Amino acid sequence: MSEPSPIGRAEIAAAAKQLADHVRVTPVLRDDSLFGEQADVVLKLELLQHTGSFKPRGALFRALTSEIPDTGLIAASGGNHGLAVAWAGRRLGVAAEIFVPEVSPELKVAKLRELGATVTVTGALYDDALAAAVERQQITGALDIHAYDHVDTIAGAGTIAREIDDQTGGVDTVVVALGGGGLASGIAAWCAGVTNVVTVEPESSRCYAAAVVAGAPVDVEVSGVAADSLGAKRVGATNWRALQAGRAQPLTVSDAAIIEAQRRLWKQVQLIAEPGGATAAAALWSGAYVPDAGERVAVIVCGANCDPASVAATA
Amino acid sequence: MSEPSPIGRAEIAAAAKQLADHVRVTPVLRDDSLFGEQADVVLKLELLQHTGSFKPRGALFRALTSEIPDTGLIAASGGNHGLAVAWAGRRLGVAAEIFVPEVSPELKVAKLRELGATVTVTGALYDDALAAAVERQQITGALDIHAYDHVDTIAGAGTIAREIDDQTGGVDTVVVALGGGGLASGIAAWCAGVTNVVTVEPESSRCYAAAVVAGAPVDVEVSGVAADSLGAKRVGATNWRALQAGRAQPLTVSDAAIIEAQRRLWKQVQLIAEPGGATAAAALWSGAYVPDAGERVAVIVCGANCDPASVAATA
Repeated sequence: MSEPSPIGRAEIAAAAKQLADHVRVTPVLRDDSLFGEQADVVLKLELLQHTGSFKPRGALFRALTSEIPDTGLIAASGGNHGLAVAWAGRRLGVAAEIFVPEVSPELKVAKLRELGATVTVTGALYDDALAAAVERQQITGALDIHAYDHVDTIAGAGTIAREIDDQTGGVDTVVVALGGGGLASGIAAWCAGVTNVVTVEPESSRCYAAAVVAGAPVDVEVSGVAADSLGAKRVGATNWRALQAGRAQPLTVSDAAIIEAQRRLWKQVQLIAEPGGATAAAALWSGAYVPDAGERVAVIVCGANCDPASVAATA
Repeated sequence: MSEPSPIGRAEIAAAAKQLADHVRVTPVLRDDSLFGEQADVVLKLELLQHTGSFKPRGALFRALTSEIPDTGLIAASGGNHGLAVAWAGRRLGVAAEIFVPEVSPELKVAKLRELGATVTVTGALYDDALAAAVERQQITGALDIHAYDHVDTIAGAGTIAREIDDQTGGVDTVVVALGGGGLASGIAAWCAGVTNVVTVEPESSRCYAAAVVAGAPVDVEVSGVAADSLGAKRVGATNWRALQAGRAQPLTVSDAAIIEAQRRLWKQVQLIAEPGGATAAAALWSGAYVPDAGERVAVIVCGANCDPASVAATA
């Protein structure tokens, strides 16, 4: 019934080859006591990636496969995607222009500037910054790197699932957070037909779960503690096709479960994960996902960018 | 000239076998850009170990090789060693009694109690708590687990070097922080005759560097940002023999270099390391240790137990 996936293993393997000199092979951590005795769970520590999230894989691979004009790269985002595009620009020695809304904290703007990006703070909210970026792109012709809805971004993200297979010898299920679908669709593209994919969204920001119910991408309201990284209004069209082809199973968790997962990642594994980064682990600790006895599960911890004090305060 | 090492690879391999069901194989992270282009450096992320430091390896192996009386384990420490002994007690289902001085923060006392230990807060400073623990041990006969000066503790710590070899295919040099010598002597015992060992101490807490100058362990004054974890007055006698047999080369770094290493570990690798945990990395970033071109180096990040807000504030 579903369409074929927009990308497959060959494209992801090719992306991995091109990314090898640039991104970190993030480690996995195994601890049978973390999620109860019967589970065979590894954590994939993608929060240790450059810039503190998985985003550089997709952003850089998109840049590597494109003709980059002299005006370089352009994106709208005060968050993880903006950091990744700024990082990709520096890595490739090209300009990066990032538009961020006025609500973005000064700390993130400073971090973007440290990465060498030209930062324009404009507009009250994200959509305003995005509109300004689009207008600017039409003038400069810079390469616009979308945060998730592009096959190359998906291929870059998919390299994480490939690494998990290399590092573990294969698992039965990958549990992954979902915002606009960039990361999860890459995982689904690699895993399709071989490994189960479970996506985890906040209850208050469930664009994929809603799309599965509706049978097609639909707009949802977004809010909650993880909205800064997972708060996409609608799952990307390309991402949707890859997620459906990989039969990715949607789950949701509460904000309380996400905060509890952040607390446990710090207290039990000494990792600072941002809310979106802890959302996949929240599915296991909250019981939203209960592995079968002996099921081999990989849980992706995909982002660290938050104020560590906010995590420690709850621990 | 130096005495033979008190332990060797056979004892460490035996320890690794006994510890395998209990401790985490902590991951390594490779990133050629972290320490400059010419260095081939991996970080050994031992700060992700249970309780947030390397200490459980030695404490648990010491317990596993001993007859444990009904009164269980006893130790004096409000820090990483105390946490490790409490954890070992819970892991083995035996009692653990920990004596901590009144200066220990309430947070650490709470953490010890969470691990199931009986905690006695007594005496103004560490030496007072230690005296109380010794007195109590003579009454209860509990197994007293020293923080570093015991062959089994050394063998437990040495399993980290063995893992590094497994995970990297071997390195030329291991760079490791030194307090009383427990961790570094284990590394030296595994590496002796095969791999260089560089020990890193704070300038203001240099018991091994002083012992090397004096030709034997001597007392030193201790102070500085890492004194809570590295502030031993004198290198352990057994540790000294293993360090000398392994020709461990002493280096020192300033408090400023340690704080800068904490800052960089958070900003560049998203890791919260306590001052003692960042001390080995400080040797590379400060230039105290400069690898040769192509030299394969492993740097052990050995502890996370601090307030994350204190690290983030400087980042």
